[in-house]
Amino acid sequence: MHKKYTLTQLTQGLDVTINGNADCLIDGVCTIQEGRPGRITFLMNPLYKKYLANTVASAVIVTADDASECTTNTLVCRDPYYIYTQIAAFFDDRPKPQPGIHPTASIGNHCQIDPSASIGANCVINDNVRIDANAIIGAGCVIGEFSEIGEGTRLDANVTLYHKIKIGKHALIASGSVIGSDGFGIAKHKGTWHKVPQLGRVIIEDYVEIGSNCSIDRGAIDDTVIERGAKLDNLIQVGHNVRIGQNTAIAGCVGISGSATIGNNCLVGGQSGFAGHITIANNVVITGGTEVSKSIRDPGIYSSGLGGLVTNLERRKNTARFHRLETLYSRVKELEQALAELTERKKA
Amino acid sequence: MHKKYTLTQLTQGLDVTINGNADCLIDGVCTIQEGRPGRITFLMNPLYKKYLANTVASAVIVTADDASECTTNTLVCRDPYYIYTQIAAFFDDRPKPQPGIHPTASIGNHCQIDPSASIGANCVINDNVRIDANAIIGAGCVIGEFSEIGEGTRLDANVTLYHKIKIGKHALIASGSVIGSDGFGIAKHKGTWHKVPQLGRVIIEDYVEIGSNCSIDRGAIDDTVIERGAKLDNLIQVGHNVRIGQNTAIAGCVGISGSATIGNNCLVGGQSGFAGHITIANNVVITGGTEVSKSIRDPGIYSSGLGGLVTNLERRKNTARFHRLETLYSRVKELEQALAELTERKKA
Amino acid sequence: MHKKYTLTQLTQGLDVTINGNADCLIDGVCTIQEGRPGRITFLMNPLYKKYLANTVASAVIVTADDASECTTNTLVCRDPYYIYTQIAAFFDDRPKPQPGIHPTASIGNHCQIDPSASIGANCVINDNVRIDANAIIGAGCVIGEFSEIGEGTRLDANVTLYHKIKIGKHALIASGSVIGSDGFGIAKHKGTWHKVPQLGRVIIEDYVEIGSNCSIDRGAIDDTVIERGAKLDNLIQVGHNVRIGQNTAIAGCVGISGSATIGNNCLVGGQSGFAGHITIANNVVITGGTEVSKSIRDPGIYSSGLGGLVTNLERRKNTARFHRLETLYSRVKELEQALAELTERKKA
Repeated sequence: MHKKYTLTQLTQGLDVTINGNADCLIDGVCTIQEGRPGRITFLMNPLYKKYLANTVASAVIVTADDASECTTNTLVCRDPYYIYTQIAAFFDDRPKPQPGIHPTASIGNHCQIDPSASIGANCVINDNVRIDANAIIGAGCVIGEFSEIGEGTRLDANVTLYHKIKIGKHALIASGSVIGSDGFGIAKHKGTWHKVPQLGRVIIEDYVEIGSNCSIDRGAIDDTVIERGAKLDNLIQVGHNVRIGQNTAIAGCVGISGSATIGNNCLVGGQSGFAGHITIANNVVITGGTEVSKSIRDPGIYSSGLGGLVTNLERRKNTARFHRLETLYSRVKELEQALAELTERKKA
Repeated sequence: MHKKYTLTQLTQGLDVTINGNADCLIDGVCTIQEGRPGRITFLMNPLYKKYLANTVASAVIVTADDASECTTNTLVCRDPYYIYTQIAAFFDDRPKPQPGIHPTASIGNHCQIDPSASIGANCVINDNVRIDANAIIGAGCVIGEFSEIGEGTRLDANVTLYHKIKIGKHALIASGSVIGSDGFGIAKHKGTWHKVPQLGRVIIEDYVEIGSNCSIDRGAIDDTVIERGAKLDNLIQVGHNVRIGQNTAIAGCVGISGSATIGNNCLVGGQSGFAGHITIANNVVITGGTEVSKSIRDPGIYSSGLGGLVTNLERRKNTARFHRLETLYSRVKELEQALAELTERKKA
Repeated sequence: MHKKYTLTQLTQGLDVTINGNADCLIDGVCTIQEGRPGRITFLMNPLYKKYLANTVASAVIVTADDASECTTNTLVCRDPYYIYTQIAAFFDDRPKPQPGIHPTASIGNHCQIDPSASIGANCVINDNVRIDANAIIGAGCVIGEFSEIGEGTRLDANVTLYHKIKIGKHALIASGSVIGSDGFGIAKHKGTWHKVPQLGRVIIEDYVEIGSNCSIDRGAIDDTVIERGAKLDNLIQVGHNVRIGQNTAIAGCVGISGSATIGNNCLVGGQSGFAGHITIANNVVITGGTEVSKSIRDPGIYSSGLGGLVTNLERRKNTARFHRLETLYSRVKELEQALAELTERKKA
C-alpha cells in the first residue's frame, strides 16, 4: 500500500491553485482515460480532453482553461506536465540504497569516496576514483582509474565506466551503458588496420541523463562532451569527440558519428543518424529516422528520405516508378520538343 | 564426442514416419548442403532441394512430397522445421547449471528462491525477490527489489532487472539485456528538462524470449507488457507503456517508441521503427527498415521508403532526379496547357 | 604529468625523416587546429592544411609534399596517419592490469589460465576455459564453458562470452558486448513459436576488434565467423552464421541478418542493414544507412534510398509529389497520345 498525501501536501511550494477538497487523500497516479479513485492525473494532450468530464480520478492537474470542464478536484496551474513531475515524485517507490560501501565491492587504492555515497554489491572501483556526496553506484558497476562521479549522481546496476571519465552532479546513467570505450579509430597501412590510440576522455556534465545500453566513446585526442542537462534515451551510439549541447534531448537508437557537434536545445527523433564532422545549430529538430548527412546552420525541423507507410505492394510499385524516373524525364523532354516543333510549324 | 541416438529414439512421441534404417545412429546435426555421415538434417527451403538427392547426411527430415527424391534415411512429417527443433534439442550441449545459490551471490532479505532454481556466481538478488522452481539466473545478473521470475525461466549472464519486474514461466532473456530502466519521460519547464517519474512496471509473460542487449523500459504510469510467446531478437528498444502482442516476432535493432501497441502474431523486420502512441493490428507484417509512422488497422504486409540497392552513383542521380520532381510536375502542367491550347485552336 | 620523449625516441624503427630539432621533447598529442607547445600532431585531411603554417604544436607528422609549408619540426613520412598511431601509443595511459587472477574472480574446473594473463575482479570463468599468455580479462566478465581466449587478447570490463566461443590472438572486445547468444531461430507450429536450438559457435579470429554493446550470435548449426583483422564499432548486431571477411570495417549500429556473408576489405557505413542469406563481394563499400537487400557481386560503392537532408516541410512536399508519381506517369502517357493524335491528323 502506498503512503497517502493530501492535495495540500502534494502541492506545497508549487504554483498551483486547488479547486475542491484540499484534504482529499491521494495514494498514487493514474492516466486520465483509466482514472481511479484515490489517484491523481493530469491533462496535457488535447486528444485526452474528452476524458476530463467523466474521470473517476480524485484529482486532475489542469490549466485554467480546462479546469471548468472537470467535475472532480482540480489543481490549476500553467504547466500541468511539469507539476505532474513534481507530484508523481511523491509516489516513486524506487528503492533507495543505503549509504556506504557494500562488503562485496572491490575498492582500489587512493579512491576518495564520500561516506554518504552508496556503492552497490560487486562494484569494482579502480584506483584513484573520486565519488562525491550522495552518489549512488548500482550493483555490478565497474569504474575505471581516475574517474570522477559528482554529487548526487546515480549509476544504475551494471554500468561500465572506463578510466578518466568525468561525470558531473545529479546525472543519471541507466544499466548496461558503457562510457569511455575506445572510439572507432583505425588507420589502414599495407593492407591491414592499425588501431589509433584513443587518448581523450568523456566529460558528462551536470544533470545529464543517459538511458540503458548506450555506448559513449572517449575522444581520440580531445574529449567527448555531453553538456549540462542533455537527455539521452536508450541504445544510443555517441562516437569519439562528439559534443552534445545543453538541454538537447535524443530519442532511442540514434547513432552519432565521430566529431559531430550538436547544438543546445535540439530534439532528435529515434533511429536518426549523424554523419561525422558536421555541426548542428541550436534549436534544431530532427524527425525520427533522418540521415543527417550535412551541417545545419539554422533552427528548424529537418528530415530526410521519404515519408509514408504503405503496403509492401504499393512500395514495390513506388520503387519501380521511382527507378523509371529517368525515362519519365526523357519522355517529357521529347514531348516538349515535339510540341515545340508542332507550334513552330503552326507559326510558320 | 557427442552422445549417439537411433532414429527411433530421436523421434519418440513425434508424428514422424521413419523410412530406412530406424536404428541408424546419429550424433549431431548438419546443414543439407554440407551433409555429414552420422548427422541428421532437414529440408524446408525449396532452394536447397537440389542437395537432397546426394546428401551424405545419415538422415533427412522431409515432407512426404520430397521424401522420394532422397536416397538416405528419411523422417517423413508434415512440418520438418518443427520436427528438427525437437530432434536438435538432443544435441544441445549448452551447460546445465546446478540448482542452488552460488556462494558468491548476494541475496537480499525476504527473498523466496525455490531450491531447484540456480543462482549463478556474483548474482545480486535484492530484497523481496521471488524466484520460482527451475529458474536459472546466470552469473552477474542483478535483480531489483520485488521482482518475480517464473518457473523454468532462464536469465543468461549479466542481465539486469530493475525493481518490480514480473517475468512469467519458461521465458528466456539473453545477456546484456536491461528490463525496467526508466522510460524516456521528460518535461520542459523554464528552459530545462525535468524527469517524469516512471512508476509503472514491466510485465513479461510466459514463453517470451528476449535477445541480448535489449532495453525494455518500465511504464510511466501503467505497465509495459510483452505478451505470451512473443519473441524478440537482439538490440531492440521497447519504450515505456509499449504492449507487444502474443506470438509476435521482432527482428534485431528495432526501436519501438513509447505507448505503441503491437498486435498478436505480427512479424517485424530488422531495424524498423515505430512511432509512439500508435496501434498495430494482429497479423501485420512489417518489412525490414520500415518507419511505422501511423497505426495499421488491417492485416497485411507494410513498408515505407524506397527499395532498391544501387550503386552510390546511381543513388546520387536518383536523388537529384527526385529533388527535381517539382520541376517535372510544372513541365508536364505546361505541356498539358500548351497542348490544350493547340487543340482548342484546331477546333476553333 | 605525462612522460616526455624526444622525436628521436618516438620515431625509432619508423620510416620517418626528422626535419628540425630531433631532441625536441614531446609529452603528448594534439589536434592540428588546436596545436599546443610540447605536443605532436599530424596532417592527413587536406581541409586542415590551412592550420599547418601557424600551428604552435612542437612537431607535425606530414608527407613530403606538405612538409615545406610547416614552420615547426616535422616528421616526414609516406603515411602520416599510420605513423601517428605508432607515436600516439607512447602516450596511451590506459591502465595496464597486473598478471594474475584477482581474488574475487570465480574460476571453474579444468581451466587453463596462463600465469601471464590478467583476470579482473569479479570475473566468472566457467569450466574448461583456456586463456592464453598476456590475455587481459576485465572486471565482471563472464566466460562460458569450453571457451578459448588467445594470446594477448583483451576483453574490457563486463563482456559476456557464452560457451564454446573461440577468440584468437590480439583481439579486443569492448565492454557490454555479448558473444555467442542464441541466434534468432524460431519455427512456428500450430500457432506458437518453437525455439530452434542454436548449436554452432562463434569464431573470432586474430586481430579482430569489437566495440561496446555489440551482440554476436552463435551459429545455428555451423559457426558464426569474424575473420582476421575485421574491425567492428559499437552496438552492432551480427546474426547467426554470419561471416565477416578479413580486414572488413563496420561502423556503429549496423545490423547483419543471419547467414549473410560479407567479403574481405569491405567498408560498411553506420546504421546499414543486411538482409539474411546474401553474399557481399570483397572490396565493397556500403554508405551509411543503406538497406543491403540483395547480394553484391562486384566491388564498388553501394547505397539505397534517397539522399538529401531537407526541411521537414520540403520532405512532406517531396513525399506528396512522390506518392502522386503514378498520376504523373498517366498524365505523360495521355500527353503522348494526344500529341501523337495531333501529329497524325496533321499528316493526314
